[in-house]
Amino acid sequence: MEFNEMEKEEKKLSRRDLIINGGKVAAGAAILSLGAVNAAKTAEAYEFTSEYKYVKLDPKEVGQTTYENYFTKWCTSSVIAGLVESLKKHAGGAWKDFPIDAYRWGHGGLAGWGTLCGTMPGAGVVIGLVTKNTDTAEAMVNDLAFYYSYNELPNFTPSGSKTAMKHMTMSGTPVCHISVGKWMKAENVAFLSNERAERCARLSANIAMEAVHMLNAWADGKYTPKHKPLYNVLANGITSQNNCTDCHGQMTPSPNTTYGTLEK
Amino acid sequence: MEFNEMEKEEKKLSRRDLIINGGKVAAGAAILSLGAVNAAKTAEAYEFTSEYKYVKLDPKEVGQTTYENYFTKWCTSSVIAGLVESLKKHAGGAWKDFPIDAYRWGHGGLAGWGTLCGTMPGAGVVIGLVTKNTDTAEAMVNDLAFYYSYNELPNFTPSGSKTAMKHMTMSGTPVCHISVGKWMKAENVAFLSNERAERCARLSANIAMEAVHMLNAWADGKYTPKHKPLYNVLANGITSQNNCTDCHGQMTPSPNTTYGTLEK
Repeated sequence: MEFNEMEKEEKKLSRRDLIINGGKVAAGAAILSLGAVNAAKTAEAYEFTSEYKYVKLDPKEVGQTTYENYFTKWCTSSVIAGLVESLKKHAGGAWKDFPIDAYRWGHGGLAGWGTLCGTMPGAGVVIGLVTKNTDTAEAMVNDLAFYYSYNELPNFTPSGSKTAMKHMTMSGTPVCHISVGKWMKAENVAFLSNERAERCARLSANIAMEAVHMLNAWADGKYTPKHKPLYNVLANGITSQNNCTDCHGQMTPSPNTTYGTLEK
Repeated sequence: MEFNEMEKEEKKLSRRDLIINGGKVAAGAAILSLGAVNAAKTAEAYEFTSEYKYVKLDPKEVGQTTYENYFTKWCTSSVIAGLVESLKKHAGGAWKDFPIDAYRWGHGGLAGWGTLCGTMPGAGVVIGLVTKNTDTAEAMVNDLAFYYSYNELPNFTPSGSKTAMKHMTMSGTPVCHISVGKWMKAENVAFLSNERAERCARLSANIAMEAVHMLNAWADGKYTPKHKPLYNVLANGITSQNNCTDCHGQMTPSPNTTYGTLEK
């Protein structure tokens, strides 16, 4: 991560329009201080004795295991299962005792709240343990969110698929209910359908496989981040994507809208 | 978790209006099958040999440690640090070697993407390792998301606070950029301000402390879930909260809006 470049970009962004008051663009939301970001910005290598060794994995093997686990473990733990079952077999060590099911709560965008797709924290858990460096892990998770958001998925074809499905969709975001909703609309099926479960199982496989692609490159000393982190851009004056109107429409909200309810 | 009751409720919800086609409410999105939910619905106790023992903790000690760690580790790892530093001291075992920094990627709603507040997966990681039961962990994480969303926060007062701040706000969601945005509007400060960092540090403390309250009750055999899981309700035919218009306004979206872009 080139922190010098990141700092230069941040300094350019000393003033930005800030969409904050539903429908209106409040100009002049000065960025008051870079202290908060700089404080935590230093790459930190972390150590622990448990041997979470990484060996290069076969993406197809990981994808198939992830797919099969989805139907009993849902997204987060199925991605972990896909990665960890292969690591158990090929790397051993601490992976043999890894609590795959301890992360099931991440499914459905956090226990069904529909926020962050559970595949992302699933992959993040393994990436964090393998890479042992805060910036490398974060860069991979960031690249994974871009992969998730800006590819037509799922494109994984399982061996022995449970249900036929037709569509791939581009989510534009790693947010669960938006990603799932776009696909449901394309496929014209309901959430509690076998097709939707099939889609999320295949998507989980895709995310686990993309994590393998990055980790394999990292194992060869060849991983470099593809995308800049969004928190560097801060185009909207807040931690967010830059496609605000995709969710918030033309910012002509109800009196009840997110940014319009709280009195000062 | 009373699964009989959950099933009864699900059967009542055999047809629901489904907001899926931006601006219009598409009636009759039948729930085709309960198979996908039922498949993964059975409580699963999981075992691993590492000794992640829990002893009842002092919420204030955990809150203060969380607060102090925020300024170098951000939300996810600071919640983990708050819980784990106390567990290291009072319970020992595998906590002594816990890779606190391996989860930093969760900050800012996933590496700054603004989705799920990083405090939630931070607490979830520890809750999952402690409770060793998929349903208990999920119920706690669900209760924690309700606590996060429907209380005026942060109300934690650190010892030796770095920056004064005035407001508490109710986020209505565990989504990072909405939660932060509402508070920024109330406080009238920018994202890269010392006040905003202070707010997120105190909020991280609040979430870690609420996790302690639940885990302490669980250690006494007295934890019972306060809230039903949202995926049971499925009021919107999808994994989501039930306050759609808070984010999506009156569903009069741009041609570009989330649910309106994909051709069938």
